[in-house]
Amino acid sequence: MKQYYSYTHFKKDTNILTRQLVSQNFDAIVGIARGGLCLSHCVAEGLGIRNVQTLRTELYDGSSKRKEISLYGNCDFKGLKKVLVLDDIADSGETLKVIMDYLETNFKDVDFKSATLFYKTTSIYEPHFWVNEANNWIDFFWERDYLQV
Amino acid sequence: MKQYYSYTHFKKDTNILTRQLVSQNFDAIVGIARGGLCLSHCVAEGLGIRNVQTLRTELYDGSSKRKEISLYGNCDFKGLKKVLVLDDIADSGETLKVIMDYLETNFKDVDFKSATLFYKTTSIYEPHFWVNEANNWIDFFWERDYLQV
Repeated sequence: MKQYYSYTHFKKDTNILTRQLVSQNFDAIVGIARGGLCLSHCVAEGLGIRNVQTLRTELYDGSSKRKEISLYGNCDFKGLKKVLVLDDIADSGETLKVIMDYLETNFKDVDFKSATLFYKTTSIYEPHFWVNEANNWIDFFWERDYLQV
Repeated sequence: MKQYYSYTHFKKDTNILTRQLVSQNFDAIVGIARGGLCLSHCVAEGLGIRNVQTLRTELYDGSSKRKEISLYGNCDFKGLKKVLVLDDIADSGETLKVIMDYLETNFKDVDFKSATLFYKTTSIYEPHFWVNEANNWIDFFWERDYLQV
């Protein structure tokens, strides 16, 4: 079953998430493209964080039977202590796991926390903060409201 | 006078903009943070573009009386021919001018086009594509709908 996730619903949940994040005093946000971009924009406005950066992953069929994930983007955390990583959903959890492993390995002085709007209990990675458990396929408004060519 | 710019209005205008962009066959999008992030997400979905990167500027008072703009972010356009640069508004136009100058100087093989939802005729830079002329102060939904701390 598909569940249309409207802007109205997103706004309500993003404010719930933002309220959980206020006391954490993050210095910057890393948004995962594309799914985490609207969320990063709105959370950044809500928390008054100007430093928003992005990372992007691509999933492709590797030479073996395993799917492989490539990561793109260069972050700059000079002088930063605590960084929030945002994505729409932890579904299989593979994207978030790859990104958190990459960040924690390459920027050992930074404390990274992750947050999503949805979390599936079957995900291999559980974000530090999440709002809803996902049982259906979520049709996010950004996937439905725009011209598809 | 302030004009509240709702998600409903944004959705309508973003689809108008996306329709203008379809035939351009862009390979990637550069979203200017923070103002261009929701727009980049939704246009990327509408055009089916997975490669979304971001740049960020900071305005500060320089040692002279002029405001100075610093630019942050590292883009990777290897193998790309045509890239779309997105921001919410060309207001003074300074941010977009700095970013377009930077991109055109540093990536000479790439064809960059810019697009915004709003354009002020007093802007020092006119985007290649824009939807509305801005006469009032625009209160974008992402600036109003979220917890401000």
